[in-house]
Amino acid sequence: MNVFERYESNVRGYCRTWPVVFDKALNAKQWDVDGNEYIDFFSGAGVLNFGHNNLKIRQAMIDYLESGGVTHSLDMYSRSKREFIERFVNVILKPRGLDYKLQFTGPTGTNVVEAALKLARKVTGRRNVVAFTDGFHGMTLGALACTGNQKFHQAAGVELNNVIRVPFDGYLGDGVDTLEPLRRALQDTSSGITPPAAFILETIQAEGGINVASKEWLQQVQQLAREHGSLLIVDDIQASVGRTGHYFSFENLGIEPDLICMAKGIGGYGTPMGVLLIKPELDVWEPGEHTGTFRGQNLSFVAGAAALDYFENDDFLAEVKRKGAITEERLVEMIERANVDIELRGCGMMHGLDMVTGEKAAAVVASAFEQNLIIPTCGPNGRVVKVMPPLTIEDDVLEEGLARLEKAILSL
Amino acid sequence: MNVFERYESNVRGYCRTWPVVFDKALNAKQWDVDGNEYIDFFSGAGVLNFGHNNLKIRQAMIDYLESGGVTHSLDMYSRSKREFIERFVNVILKPRGLDYKLQFTGPTGTNVVEAALKLARKVTGRRNVVAFTDGFHGMTLGALACTGNQKFHQAAGVELNNVIRVPFDGYLGDGVDTLEPLRRALQDTSSGITPPAAFILETIQAEGGINVASKEWLQQVQQLAREHGSLLIVDDIQASVGRTGHYFSFENLGIEPDLICMAKGIGGYGTPMGVLLIKPELDVWEPGEHTGTFRGQNLSFVAGAAALDYFENDDFLAEVKRKGAITEERLVEMIERANVDIELRGCGMMHGLDMVTGEKAAAVVASAFEQNLIIPTCGPNGRVVKVMPPLTIEDDVLEEGLARLEKAILSL
Amino acid sequence: MNVFERYESNVRGYCRTWPVVFDKALNAKQWDVDGNEYIDFFSGAGVLNFGHNNLKIRQAMIDYLESGGVTHSLDMYSRSKREFIERFVNVILKPRGLDYKLQFTGPTGTNVVEAALKLARKVTGRRNVVAFTDGFHGMTLGALACTGNQKFHQAAGVELNNVIRVPFDGYLGDGVDTLEPLRRALQDTSSGITPPAAFILETIQAEGGINVASKEWLQQVQQLAREHGSLLIVDDIQASVGRTGHYFSFENLGIEPDLICMAKGIGGYGTPMGVLLIKPELDVWEPGEHTGTFRGQNLSFVAGAAALDYFENDDFLAEVKRKGAITEERLVEMIERANVDIELRGCGMMHGLDMVTGEKAAAVVASAFEQNLIIPTCGPNGRVVKVMPPLTIEDDVLEEGLARLEKAILSL
Amino acid sequence: MNVFERYESNVRGYCRTWPVVFDKALNAKQWDVDGNEYIDFFSGAGVLNFGHNNLKIRQAMIDYLESGGVTHSLDMYSRSKREFIERFVNVILKPRGLDYKLQFTGPTGTNVVEAALKLARKVTGRRNVVAFTDGFHGMTLGALACTGNQKFHQAAGVELNNVIRVPFDGYLGDGVDTLEPLRRALQDTSSGITPPAAFILETIQAEGGINVASKEWLQQVQQLAREHGSLLIVDDIQASVGRTGHYFSFENLGIEPDLICMAKGIGGYGTPMGVLLIKPELDVWEPGEHTGTFRGQNLSFVAGAAALDYFENDDFLAEVKRKGAITEERLVEMIERANVDIELRGCGMMHGLDMVTGEKAAAVVASAFEQNLIIPTCGPNGRVVKVMPPLTIEDDVLEEGLARLEKAILSL
Repeated sequence: MNVFERYESNVRGYCRTWPVVFDKALNAKQWDVDGNEYIDFFSGAGVLNFGHNNLKIRQAMIDYLESGGVTHSLDMYSRSKREFIERFVNVILKPRGLDYKLQFTGPTGTNVVEAALKLARKVTGRRNVVAFTDGFHGMTLGALACTGNQKFHQAAGVELNNVIRVPFDGYLGDGVDTLEPLRRALQDTSSGITPPAAFILETIQAEGGINVASKEWLQQVQQLAREHGSLLIVDDIQASVGRTGHYFSFENLGIEPDLICMAKGIGGYGTPMGVLLIKPELDVWEPGEHTGTFRGQNLSFVAGAAALDYFENDDFLAEVKRKGAITEERLVEMIERANVDIELRGCGMMHGLDMVTGEKAAAVVASAFEQNLIIPTCGPNGRVVKVMPPLTIEDDVLEEGLARLEKAILSL
Repeated sequence: MNVFERYESNVRGYCRTWPVVFDKALNAKQWDVDGNEYIDFFSGAGVLNFGHNNLKIRQAMIDYLESGGVTHSLDMYSRSKREFIERFVNVILKPRGLDYKLQFTGPTGTNVVEAALKLARKVTGRRNVVAFTDGFHGMTLGALACTGNQKFHQAAGVELNNVIRVPFDGYLGDGVDTLEPLRRALQDTSSGITPPAAFILETIQAEGGINVASKEWLQQVQQLAREHGSLLIVDDIQASVGRTGHYFSFENLGIEPDLICMAKGIGGYGTPMGVLLIKPELDVWEPGEHTGTFRGQNLSFVAGAAALDYFENDDFLAEVKRKGAITEERLVEMIERANVDIELRGCGMMHGLDMVTGEKAAAVVASAFEQNLIIPTCGPNGRVVKVMPPLTIEDDVLEEGLARLEKAILSL
Repeated sequence: MNVFERYESNVRGYCRTWPVVFDKALNAKQWDVDGNEYIDFFSGAGVLNFGHNNLKIRQAMIDYLESGGVTHSLDMYSRSKREFIERFVNVILKPRGLDYKLQFTGPTGTNVVEAALKLARKVTGRRNVVAFTDGFHGMTLGALACTGNQKFHQAAGVELNNVIRVPFDGYLGDGVDTLEPLRRALQDTSSGITPPAAFILETIQAEGGINVASKEWLQQVQQLAREHGSLLIVDDIQASVGRTGHYFSFENLGIEPDLICMAKGIGGYGTPMGVLLIKPELDVWEPGEHTGTFRGQNLSFVAGAAALDYFENDDFLAEVKRKGAITEERLVEMIERANVDIELRGCGMMHGLDMVTGEKAAAVVASAFEQNLIIPTCGPNGRVVKVMPPLTIEDDVLEEGLARLEKAILSL
Repeated sequence: MNVFERYESNVRGYCRTWPVVFDKALNAKQWDVDGNEYIDFFSGAGVLNFGHNNLKIRQAMIDYLESGGVTHSLDMYSRSKREFIERFVNVILKPRGLDYKLQFTGPTGTNVVEAALKLARKVTGRRNVVAFTDGFHGMTLGALACTGNQKFHQAAGVELNNVIRVPFDGYLGDGVDTLEPLRRALQDTSSGITPPAAFILETIQAEGGINVASKEWLQQVQQLAREHGSLLIVDDIQASVGRTGHYFSFENLGIEPDLICMAKGIGGYGTPMGVLLIKPELDVWEPGEHTGTFRGQNLSFVAGAAALDYFENDDFLAEVKRKGAITEERLVEMIERANVDIELRGCGMMHGLDMVTGEKAAAVVASAFEQNLIIPTCGPNGRVVKVMPPLTIEDDVLEEGLARLEKAILSL
């Protein structure tokens, strides 16, 4: 680790929580250079829905590499991009009755969000967007303005403007309509607030602490957007690709976003891909108005297309729901046995244990790591333990990981 | 191509210049799905310094995939990241007497630039940065503010502030000291201009039209920065990794940047990687202040480390210089034979033919493509034909490509 | 009027409501060039608390002019400024147990507000300020950002940033705590909202529609400000100098502002003066950091000092309360007799009749003007008829004006 | 002075240079409360072109006060406003072949500038304006962004954006075309600079150090503005109303501004007035889009109209030129006799002695004050002694003042 301490910037973070050097990985397990085995409830911050080094996807990648298929192609046409698009349309969009065009941006989430914000501003000719408390949308200045976390804001070093901040569902307690002040202000020409270009939200705030918006609230956001000519942008970067038991997090919630931000899981293997889904009538981009060198990653197209096999029928999503139910049941048990107050939130295979303070959450994480369980925190001051194993985790590994987590919690 | 037209956003650009579907590639050649062969003078916008699907790098990637090495690790420690850092330090930094720390950001150039700007603002407590006419630094709002192109600015949809725009070397004609107005203003408390956090520049503006800054001018920029406590950021994303005949574009120019932005070529195989090099004393980041999901791409570490083999001795860079000289000689010939005014700029294997108008440059590109040569434009209104083959291009392929280019030019 | 139409900018406004050329005025009456007499319930937008051409103040001004006293002195010391300060301290501040320093800014309200915002930002080192729905604070860019009215915002032509907009007391209906979302957000480091430099408010929003904040709400604002190290700025430009039956609008409300903005009435005779009252410990200005050519208006000092005579004992304020009560009683009667829904708001001699729509309010104003009563609108879309006669209005003129107003209302 | 020290904000400035309490004044003389007599070469920062307490203007004001004429009327029509407009049109505009509409804004210069900027942005739909090094345009945020002085910028406490800063004529030395970098950038879509809404400038920078733009340069600015659809705004607040020997500073310079900012001298007696002159075709204001309580100051209209008598024929302006020539001759003598380097700049009765350092200029001012001469500094770090007596100064008082100034200079 001396190499890292001497040569890698102080900005490095997760390595401080789990100070070992990782070497190999498979599905929900990782091994360090000394051969120690770890269970992974982190999933690469929501990227590794299909586990580490998913064998099927890997084979597709190796085959592609060996075939000499073009690797890097920007927004030139390529065979593997065409296949990815066709698969995505046929496996995901059409069966759900959805019609979107795909914009491949630079392959990071923040790139997708920046593209979405630009497009919403272009479509509407407006500048401000509504973003929500505890939202997380990225680190580059446009996306960062929408992110709620103060530490990240301060690091910007400049003013982050053009955002109207509104409390997320539940932020003001049960039953409080957090949209009412905005709704009222938008009806009033003296309120100081004018209709926004867009509302941007995660249906389930992941980094924000696993805050799950209700169906009713989401529909009200959509209605408010529609009434005022604003676009609805769902940042589904972390909660999609099966994580909630649906492909998109917003299925069955009665909303139909104008723009959908995808990254993380969509690349299949941890291979980077960023996609903005655009309702066809909103695709007002001029050619080349938003670019990015790595927007044509063919290895990611290949891996992402292979990963779409999981969604050809409902079996995989049913498995996600089943394992999610097991997880939830076990988490409820732990909370009941715990000596401290813990609030459980989440759905599918995306859960958070709100430990009330960052100190307690950090203690759980540390105790888990002593047992070789990799599990992170999220939420304000890191007070929420985030339970997010690969969707493909084996039942026994899931049980073992949960047992280690329980032990960590009970040790408080 | 119907799939693309129906489902890919209008924003797609390069595919309109080269409207075929690419399938396979090797070194400086590409093949479309119909088996047609193309010579590539584009190099994936400067990414593919080692050619398409470099066999040696590919083998390292396949070996790594088959070994089960961890693929996606954010800023956790990994074996392959350690090896990359060690190789980079030993092969690149130490032999050049340079000492920098590495920050792995999200793997796109714009991510690296955003990190550099944040850090410069944090170090200095200042907000404005000096950026130059025709500069290109990325598409996300922080980097975009530094980019000069008006089309990209308009697409932002919001104000892009905190940039002092200064003419690049040569912008006002030969012998004009473009820094003098700024130099004078920085001595004057009533000038309306206060010392900036940083000067950000490309030593050779690639997208801006292959504009090569002189050694003297660069040293003056550095001196001005030093005098006023500003950092010097070199955005070496396109011009480094051997492109100029040196590893970094600024070697032998008598400057020593505070921060260096690397992306594109450093990943080796078109595999995305973004690195900010930071002088150790400026590494004032708090842990986790700037993050990004895909900042731990182990396939890129493996490919990037393999690519560093090219720099273990001077042979490869000597080859670049040799092929660059051949290229330049041939370009001079073409210009002499041409029926139109053309200005040649560039160095190493990075050349631009300024055709004066975008129409003429587009005609050259179209005529070249009719001969199966892929060559792009850059510069204001796309008026510069950009000659940038892979550094590993075979001599005969280079000659053939140049012959096709000549034919295109002479057809004007 | 041809002269005005030909040579005065289209921006002129009130002259369109009352299209006659005024010539003479005395207390609550005005005469046009044709000798027609009008009753004035407008008071020069809240400036003429002591009536038009108050004879006692006028004499002081003429005496001063004839004495050769210095007229224009910027922030040089002058005898008349000294006398004004002494009178203000002795007649207003000391008897109320208040201790403030006086900053004479440029003599418009917006100048005072800009100074207050700068000082609050300097004291706290923060940038954002909380301003409220329907607030009105001026037309220059700093103050305008705090103003709520969309028409004025659009006219700015640039982005107005650094303001957190919060609903004013009552904005969300009776009993709704409009501060709760902000209170909650300020406790949370991921809310996207950081502690502001200041809260700026009018205790009674005048241009905003005569919205009266409750004592409890104001105290909560102050408490929230104190908890987060933010200053409390009361913009008392329109509601002070006796208008509410107190000298300051916030007396007896249990708050003690850090900064108080004064203009309009304080000049006494319609003579311009702007004063920022600053708690001594917050007076961190460097000499000359905020300037303004007309900050030393000695005719205004003389007139303003003469006007302070009204506050040497409680008689005048008792008269204001008495006439305010008469007014309110009569307004209640009118509302009961009216054929349309009208909501009465206000206190002291500052009332608003909310006619629900701008059309109805405009009809009342037009009908009143047909009867030679000058009365304006305010509030969102101009839907509130604003009843604000000079404080010195004679009882019979007040009664006659109210009778005309009633007739106008009943004509709907 | 204890009253001031205890109760007036630290922000007070000029009183520190001249620490006496002024009482009376007449033309170019002032007396303090102890009866000491001073000669005034300051003229209230350029306001008192017609001297202190001009007897003829004073009589008009007293007559008006005694007549009961309306004093405060916002933008209602009033007889005295009509008379002012008629006089201004007939005495100033028509004889000069100029056609402008008048917008009365709040009566401070910064208010006028803010109105001009808004209107230019509205006319063009653009946001940025070009402002010049050492320019001074006011203290409120919109105008302040155009002002060059760093001390004032820092006091803003927020970002001041939307300004492109360009060197004023002469800023880079004799013969350097300071507009060329901008001219070049405006032809280039990749320069990072887009056509501005307006160019705002003083033809003679007063606060900036008496920097006189050449006729040729001003014409080039106008040409550049015309070529790019930008408005030309002349801020003539300090240099007009006869100061240069012309009514407007730009007469005979071959330019015709689109918008002209007037304040200071136009009120006649130190009575505040602000006027924006607008080319009729650019008067696109909606009624009431820019307001301000004190925009209808009838005492200022009366005083301002009386002052226009001075311009009914050329005698007064001829006198200004004559006295200006005397002044210049004497200043040249002083410089020749002085022991230090001094540069003389200026025209008409507006001169500056650039003492190279602020320390030397301050020493001159202090030495002059010991001799009862009131003379200020201006320019970067206050290094320029500003010679600006009332235009109506008697010859013997002018000579005496100059003698005292000479003594102060020779004492260095």
